[in-house]
Amino acid sequence: MINSIGNIYRLTSFGESHGPAIGGVIDGVPSGLVIDTEALQTELDRRRPGTSDVSSRRSEPDKVRLLSGIYKGVTTGSPIGFIIENTDARPSDYADIRDAFRPNHADYTYYAKFGHRDPNGGGRASARETAARVVAGAVALQALAAVGIRVDAYASAIGYVGCNADYNSFDLAKVWDSPVRCPDEDISAAMRQAIIDAASEGDSLGGIVTCIVRGAPAGLGEPVFSRLESMLGAAMLSIPAAKGFDVGLGVDSATARGSQVRDIFCVTEDSRISTDSNWSGGIQGGISNGNDIVMRVFFKPTPTVMQPYTTVDSSMRTVSVRPKGRHDPCVVPRAVQVVRSMAAITMFDALLLDRCRRM
Amino acid sequence: MINSIGNIYRLTSFGESHGPAIGGVIDGVPSGLVIDTEALQTELDRRRPGTSDVSSRRSEPDKVRLLSGIYKGVTTGSPIGFIIENTDARPSDYADIRDAFRPNHADYTYYAKFGHRDPNGGGRASARETAARVVAGAVALQALAAVGIRVDAYASAIGYVGCNADYNSFDLAKVWDSPVRCPDEDISAAMRQAIIDAASEGDSLGGIVTCIVRGAPAGLGEPVFSRLESMLGAAMLSIPAAKGFDVGLGVDSATARGSQVRDIFCVTEDSRISTDSNWSGGIQGGISNGNDIVMRVFFKPTPTVMQPYTTVDSSMRTVSVRPKGRHDPCVVPRAVQVVRSMAAITMFDALLLDRCRRM
Amino acid sequence: MINSIGNIYRLTSFGESHGPAIGGVIDGVPSGLVIDTEALQTELDRRRPGTSDVSSRRSEPDKVRLLSGIYKGVTTGSPIGFIIENTDARPSDYADIRDAFRPNHADYTYYAKFGHRDPNGGGRASARETAARVVAGAVALQALAAVGIRVDAYASAIGYVGCNADYNSFDLAKVWDSPVRCPDEDISAAMRQAIIDAASEGDSLGGIVTCIVRGAPAGLGEPVFSRLESMLGAAMLSIPAAKGFDVGLGVDSATARGSQVRDIFCVTEDSRISTDSNWSGGIQGGISNGNDIVMRVFFKPTPTVMQPYTTVDSSMRTVSVRPKGRHDPCVVPRAVQVVRSMAAITMFDALLLDRCRRM
Amino acid sequence: MINSIGNIYRLTSFGESHGPAIGGVIDGVPSGLVIDTEALQTELDRRRPGTSDVSSRRSEPDKVRLLSGIYKGVTTGSPIGFIIENTDARPSDYADIRDAFRPNHADYTYYAKFGHRDPNGGGRASARETAARVVAGAVALQALAAVGIRVDAYASAIGYVGCNADYNSFDLAKVWDSPVRCPDEDISAAMRQAIIDAASEGDSLGGIVTCIVRGAPAGLGEPVFSRLESMLGAAMLSIPAAKGFDVGLGVDSATARGSQVRDIFCVTEDSRISTDSNWSGGIQGGISNGNDIVMRVFFKPTPTVMQPYTTVDSSMRTVSVRPKGRHDPCVVPRAVQVVRSMAAITMFDALLLDRCRRM
Repeated sequence: MINSIGNIYRLTSFGESHGPAIGGVIDGVPSGLVIDTEALQTELDRRRPGTSDVSSRRSEPDKVRLLSGIYKGVTTGSPIGFIIENTDARPSDYADIRDAFRPNHADYTYYAKFGHRDPNGGGRASARETAARVVAGAVALQALAAVGIRVDAYASAIGYVGCNADYNSFDLAKVWDSPVRCPDEDISAAMRQAIIDAASEGDSLGGIVTCIVRGAPAGLGEPVFSRLESMLGAAMLSIPAAKGFDVGLGVDSATARGSQVRDIFCVTEDSRISTDSNWSGGIQGGISNGNDIVMRVFFKPTPTVMQPYTTVDSSMRTVSVRPKGRHDPCVVPRAVQVVRSMAAITMFDALLLDRCRRM
Repeated sequence: MINSIGNIYRLTSFGESHGPAIGGVIDGVPSGLVIDTEALQTELDRRRPGTSDVSSRRSEPDKVRLLSGIYKGVTTGSPIGFIIENTDARPSDYADIRDAFRPNHADYTYYAKFGHRDPNGGGRASARETAARVVAGAVALQALAAVGIRVDAYASAIGYVGCNADYNSFDLAKVWDSPVRCPDEDISAAMRQAIIDAASEGDSLGGIVTCIVRGAPAGLGEPVFSRLESMLGAAMLSIPAAKGFDVGLGVDSATARGSQVRDIFCVTEDSRISTDSNWSGGIQGGISNGNDIVMRVFFKPTPTVMQPYTTVDSSMRTVSVRPKGRHDPCVVPRAVQVVRSMAAITMFDALLLDRCRRM
Repeated sequence: MINSIGNIYRLTSFGESHGPAIGGVIDGVPSGLVIDTEALQTELDRRRPGTSDVSSRRSEPDKVRLLSGIYKGVTTGSPIGFIIENTDARPSDYADIRDAFRPNHADYTYYAKFGHRDPNGGGRASARETAARVVAGAVALQALAAVGIRVDAYASAIGYVGCNADYNSFDLAKVWDSPVRCPDEDISAAMRQAIIDAASEGDSLGGIVTCIVRGAPAGLGEPVFSRLESMLGAAMLSIPAAKGFDVGLGVDSATARGSQVRDIFCVTEDSRISTDSNWSGGIQGGISNGNDIVMRVFFKPTPTVMQPYTTVDSSMRTVSVRPKGRHDPCVVPRAVQVVRSMAAITMFDALLLDRCRRM
Repeated sequence: MINSIGNIYRLTSFGESHGPAIGGVIDGVPSGLVIDTEALQTELDRRRPGTSDVSSRRSEPDKVRLLSGIYKGVTTGSPIGFIIENTDARPSDYADIRDAFRPNHADYTYYAKFGHRDPNGGGRASARETAARVVAGAVALQALAAVGIRVDAYASAIGYVGCNADYNSFDLAKVWDSPVRCPDEDISAAMRQAIIDAASEGDSLGGIVTCIVRGAPAGLGEPVFSRLESMLGAAMLSIPAAKGFDVGLGVDSATARGSQVRDIFCVTEDSRISTDSNWSGGIQGGISNGNDIVMRVFFKPTPTVMQPYTTVDSSMRTVSVRPKGRHDPCVVPRAVQVVRSMAAITMFDALLLDRCRRM
């Protein structure tokens, strides 16, 4: 188990889905940052289950209790400890599958690694742990905002419904008005319908989250092994259900010709060096170049499909299972805030890491 | 700069493209491993430039000199230090562009971060540093082989030429006979022609490397932040020119339905728990499940295109450049061995990391 | 701020003396360990203030609430999160010295580093944070006991009162019956009197804690930079008020002759290789040799002396201070359990770290 | 094996005493530092064996070859790789003791950990590896000097000959004129004689190295687990033969009264906050306070004593050994430069680590 992420700005998290509480410790927070603690709760609410007809009906208030590191709204430089109580855990939902390995879940692999079968709905493998990430992300978002860096994310695809227009054409602040976290109203409606349709058949969908970091200075990222895309990729691929990650032109680079995707350098009106296109997605040679950092995270469909199946249990017996439980039919809407949080954590870490190279 | 990778099995590398030598230190090597040092050289030769008409004409013998940690062919538990001398460096090739920022290269971002312009062809940003990765990968490959784990990689796409058949239909040992590192003879020829055609126009191509790990036990990977895909993704995205990474169905998961991609558990003839499909790519919940681990790395076209362009220099003057230098018109053929090496380093690290949780 | 310790078995702690709670996350705990949670509380009680006439009168129940990682008394392999509520914080005690820098305290250095003056009695610099260490130590003690490793500690000096007999002559389980944590009844009484005498003059005393690890196998420690004495020393010197550390003959080695302190190897009756003396303190070349590991930690007198003094405040004004607050007149009695805990954390970490070198 | 030290400024070293070469990689070096490479060699020469009648007669030129990271005398921000060839290795000296475990050496513990007996004189356990530390220390010394921080060290005791006057009474630059590295001419002569006398009896001596860091700003050190004394202690206790470490009043704190050792704050003539004494040794609450940082490292006598002894070998047979080889009869004279180097590495790391907390 490695439950810490970050070099300088560093989250260590704990907690299982159906235990008493989850929480974490955020270390490496510079002192003197003004933190709006109510805004932290607002960010956390954006990941909360039970808020729309396309998310799990589990009803968790998800109130974060801050225990240290912030005094009268200002960070002290000490670690920020926090907990979020679990209030709507229902271990009984999982009584039927106490021993059976659910397909595409972590049941079997946790059993293989740790020698036991978590009896209560995923335990540490549940996406519930991502609430702690959002708390750390929310602190980072405020710190980044103070130096002019803004992080946004949105659902750019759910199943076959894509939102492919240039992100600059959207008002990304509106993402939170959409139940599926898509800034285009029509596409949002289509995405929502796609989820409802799949759910009505007991099925689930995957999708894509696009994330944009604006205002990051040139110079962030630590080659050769902590290139910025490497740090960001590691953060994103640690999110449950993430199966792929790319930056800029990304996976489509494979079929591009070099002559087509040159980001030609130019001097801007305000005398900065910039490029007249952004095929690179804001990162060159593993270091930010001052452009928008653009990345995508690809999510698989929720493993739990409400259709009967056979599987094996820890005694190697074949068993038939009729799925129960409260699951999102598509993880993307709630993953949007998690992706944004991981981007914020990583960018703030990269920013602080870059500081330490300065005499 | 972060020039180390790995938690337990750990490579720290150094060296610039046009300096006297590159090299590294491999720490965390268990004692008592039998190492065939000639086979290390063979693996390194597979990444070497100048060996085919589709790679750079830079001619480096790339002879690795092992300085410590191996005594009479057996590891001692001490770190393995090694160097590879640079013999064909030609800094003069770069005299013309001493101050100009080449598009899509790291020239500008290194300048922004470190405050200087490497005058000699990329310096630390050059892919030449990947030779050190191959040495560490070669040691890992031998250690993994001793416990029945095998790592293979091949070019699965170069530009629009794809090699899409199931990897089980190929003899992956034959990859090294192909100048482009593709196991299918016909597709290999087509890929080679695509590169030659692009190069004849002064252009460059991108592509995809597929990597397969066979024989890994269930249980590797450290949730929640060092999930196996997170460790592998970080390693791959640290390779120069890598812009995307996925596992299993990966980026195509986004459009899949949950019911279509369930890896149903079964009991094998030799009484192991397995699954009857492998959409997950061998990883579930961030932990290996005993199936083949299947991943892809997406590479952009080589930035250097042999077509004139304008850019700016460090004095913000607009300059015209007529490209020179010895560059691969497509990085994929040589990246195959680098991807394989990073997979080996990561898998061996994950294996050792898993060991330390055992009393 | 670095609030984590350990490579594999890793404690991350948080919390200030006068905030709502302190706590921590213990990561790297192997799964399947049987944990007696009541015994954890017993260990924590041994560090608790307010339990004798030689310790602070602050009255904290110090009840640990375990939030994750242990299910039905067995570790799951997930991180153990825990909190301890602060119930008897009295920030008002510190109103007088809101701006003044107390001598030998951390007031000024925290101000210099973090740019603010913690107004509430030391905040993160208070020894109250060591309660989190005792929780992590208590888990480690149980894990070590399961493999035959036992850690003891005792006050071997308080001021000029020393307890110099061979530790093998004591029953170290009796340490907890002594208010000063000394296993010799007469010396314990003398130490207690020394503290009372000093306190009656408003003064404070320093002292020495001796710690012994029995049953550790040969082979623990990671040269060259994480030698076992280096790991142990770093752990001990992170304890508030610790100013020195040694192993075996330690500081007295300086005046020894080589011929006098040779630990000559022999074969034991049960056919193990051992030595006929233990000047080395159980560590040679940075690695445990199977003998008892013997170390000492040297503590300074409590900085707060109940005698008026002048100092400066953050406005550089000279101010006179008449000390208040509830302080231990000697830190040693309560530090005994902290030293033991840090030894347990470190030894367990070294044990797990050694495991990961085994194929 | 953990062969890296430092959080940001980080040395990874490799190499055995009797292999072809030793060396290392220094990562985290800020770009733009002017480095006098000849001065690096001068610092290395100060640790070199064979330079006086009180050190080993092994004759190594110890010429460092810099391979990367410095271009035209200025650091580039890339890692500095370097090697030092071994030229006077004499494995044959160790033929007699191929299987015997020498007392107080690392022979047995390396055997227990790694399963083999290094046949060639200590291998990685030899103090020869400290040459790599001096290279990294020398780079750090230059970087620190550029910001007004100076690190000195000297032999303050060899056996019973102590050099106890206030270090401010010495010109510490003269240390290098003394064969035993003591700045007082008379005491130096007495120390030299003590070593010669002990050596003439085939015996060896221990001693103490005192190290002083001047000019460090207030604010360095990372509580609660990387307190500055914790970082320094870990670094020092990783030096071969070090058995104890203290800061300021250190081990003598144990018998002090709080009222006697208060460092009373005052305002200096140039309007800085300081203290009128330095019992704390420049560190309070784990953070530097702007005063001189004063520490001591206690060394045991060289294990090799030129007197016959019996021991056991790896087959558990009792064997008689008549010692050979070229050993320093007292490690202190050469350890002075190693202590100074480790202090420089640690202070520079602490400085850079502190930087990363600044927005």
